[in-house]
Amino acid sequence: MDKKELLACHERIKPYVHHTPVMSSSLINDQLGCSVFFKCENFQRAGAYKIRGATHAILHIPEGRRKKGVVTHSSGNFAQALSLAARSLGIPAHIVMPETAPSIKKAGVHTYGGTIYECAPTVEAREAMSAEIGQKTGATFLHPSNDDHVILGQGTAALELLFEHPGLNAIFCPVGGGGLIAGSALAAAYFGKDCAVLGGEPFEADDAYRSMLSGTIEGNDTVNTIADGLKTVLGDRNFPIIQAHVSKIVRVTEMEIVEAMRLVWERMKIIIEASSAVTLAALIRDVSDHPNHYKGKAIGIIISGGNVDLDKLPFQKLG
Amino acid sequence: MDKKELLACHERIKPYVHHTPVMSSSLINDQLGCSVFFKCENFQRAGAYKIRGATHAILHIPEGRRKKGVVTHSSGNFAQALSLAARSLGIPAHIVMPETAPSIKKAGVHTYGGTIYECAPTVEAREAMSAEIGQKTGATFLHPSNDDHVILGQGTAALELLFEHPGLNAIFCPVGGGGLIAGSALAAAYFGKDCAVLGGEPFEADDAYRSMLSGTIEGNDTVNTIADGLKTVLGDRNFPIIQAHVSKIVRVTEMEIVEAMRLVWERMKIIIEASSAVTLAALIRDVSDHPNHYKGKAIGIIISGGNVDLDKLPFQKLG
Repeated sequence: MDKKELLACHERIKPYVHHTPVMSSSLINDQLGCSVFFKCENFQRAGAYKIRGATHAILHIPEGRRKKGVVTHSSGNFAQALSLAARSLGIPAHIVMPETAPSIKKAGVHTYGGTIYECAPTVEAREAMSAEIGQKTGATFLHPSNDDHVILGQGTAALELLFEHPGLNAIFCPVGGGGLIAGSALAAAYFGKDCAVLGGEPFEADDAYRSMLSGTIEGNDTVNTIADGLKTVLGDRNFPIIQAHVSKIVRVTEMEIVEAMRLVWERMKIIIEASSAVTLAALIRDVSDHPNHYKGKAIGIIISGGNVDLDKLPFQKLG
Repeated sequence: MDKKELLACHERIKPYVHHTPVMSSSLINDQLGCSVFFKCENFQRAGAYKIRGATHAILHIPEGRRKKGVVTHSSGNFAQALSLAARSLGIPAHIVMPETAPSIKKAGVHTYGGTIYECAPTVEAREAMSAEIGQKTGATFLHPSNDDHVILGQGTAALELLFEHPGLNAIFCPVGGGGLIAGSALAAAYFGKDCAVLGGEPFEADDAYRSMLSGTIEGNDTVNTIADGLKTVLGDRNFPIIQAHVSKIVRVTEMEIVEAMRLVWERMKIIIEASSAVTLAALIRDVSDHPNHYKGKAIGIIISGGNVDLDKLPFQKLG
C-alpha cells in the first residue's frame, strides 16, 4: 500500500464515485479559533465514503471471478455501498444481514440492487452464512474494513481533501472498523506536510482507544452509542497502520456527539450521521483541552456519511 | 427595475452574500424524468436568500440616513437577514417581533446582532411600533418583500442559477410575500431563454393562487400550513411583476410538502425548510399532472432556506 498504489486506486475508482465537496462554516471556525475543512462524504453515492473502498475491492477481483459477484455481512453503510458498487460494475451483491436489522437498512440495500439474506443476529451465524453463499455462488467475500484494497479506497477521501488543502495540520476521522482512518493515515503520510491524523471514538465503544494503549486489538463489552457505524472493532490489516500513523484517539460522550450533530445540522444545513458527528465532537473536545495547539491551524474533518433515520432523531431528547 | 439594475444589484451585494452552490440528485432526476437544478440558498448567510434583498435595500439608503439604522417587523428569516446585513454594513437593526414569536427566532436575531422589540401579536401593533422606532431613532423602515430594492436583491439567486444553467426551461419558486418570485421572474425574463417561472404555494395559504385568478391581491382567512414562511400576502410592488411574468401557481397539500422535504433530506442530505419543500412538491405535482411537458427538460428550483427547529420536525407524524 504505497504512494503509487493510493494514486492508482484514486484514478481507478474515479468513474464510479463522486468527488465530494469540501465545506466550511465561519461560525464553527470562529468558535474553535482554527479553520475547519469538512470533506462531505455524506454527499457521496449511497450516502457514505464506503463506496470508495467497495468499488476498489471489486475492481481488484480478477475478471473471471468478479462476474460471480461479491458477498459481505454488514448491517450498515457498507452493505448499501457494496450493493451500489456491484450494480455499477454489473455484478451481483449478496448481503448477509441479521434478521433484527432495521427495515430502513434493508430497504437501502434493496434500493441499490443487493440481494439480502437474513440470519440469526450473531457473528457466527453471519460468517457461516457468508461462507455458504460464497461456496454456492462463487461470490468473493469482501470485508468492510479489514482489507487492503478497501483501506486504500477509503483513503481517497482524505487524498482529495489534501489535494484541495495541502497545508492541513491535522485530519480527524471517526474510528469504527478502522478502514477509513487507516486509509486516511496513509494519505496524510504520503501527501500531507506534517499532517497529523487523529481519531474520534465514543466513550461507549472505545475499543480503538484501548487497543492503542495495550498494543493489541481490543473488543467492546457493550456498545451503547448513538454512533451506530462505530460499534465494530479494528482488524489485523488496518491496526498496524493506525499504530504507525495515528497520533491520538479522542473519546467523546453521547451528549457531545448529539451537540456536534446539532451544530452541523443547524449551522451548516447538511445532514450528517451520528458517527460523523463524533469526529467534530472529538475536535471540539481536543481544542477545548489544548486551545493553543489549534490556534490558527487548518484542520480537516472527514464527514463519513449522512444516512440517518428521520423517524428516530436524537434532538428532542436533549431539549 | 430593468436588466441593468438587476446586474448592478448583483455586483453591489456580492461582497456581502455567498454565491451558493447548485446541487442535483440523480435519483430525483430519474424519478421526475427531467433534470432538476437546486439553487441552495439554505447555504446562504443566515440560512436563507433574504440577505440578498436586505443587503441591497440597505445599500440604497443614502449614507447619512443609513447610519441611523433600519427597522422592520418580521418574525421570520427576514429579521435574521436584516440583522446580519446591517451588522455587515456597520449599522443598527431594530426588529419588531410579536411577543409570541418562538424563542429560536428571537435567538437568531440576537445572534446576528439585531435589537428585538416585542409587541402584541397583531399587524396594527407591529406597524405602530415600527413607526415609533423609526421616528425615535431615524431608522429607515424596510419591508421584507414589497420593496423594489428587496425584489431586485432576491432576484439575484435566480440570476446566478441562470448564469450557471442558461438553458433552463423553467424555474420554480415558493410564494410568500412575493419578493422572491417577483425578483426571480425578472431574472428569468431578462436572462432566460424562454424560461417560464412557476410558483409553489400551500393549499392552506393559497392567496397568490387566488390573487392571480381575481386580478387583485387576496388575503388568507386561515394559514394552517407547516410552511411558515409562506403565510404572508403579496404587495402592490411585486404583484404586477408576478401577474406579468409568472405562468402558474401550483398548490400543494401539507402531506406533499412533508414528503418533498423528506425526499430532499434523505436523498440529498441537505436541510431545507418546509417553505422550500413547497417548491419541489409543486414541481412533483405538476410533473405528475403533465408528464410529457417536463420530459427531458431542465428545471431550476430555488431552495429558499434551511432554518428549521430541530426540536419540532414533522417527520414522525407521518410514520
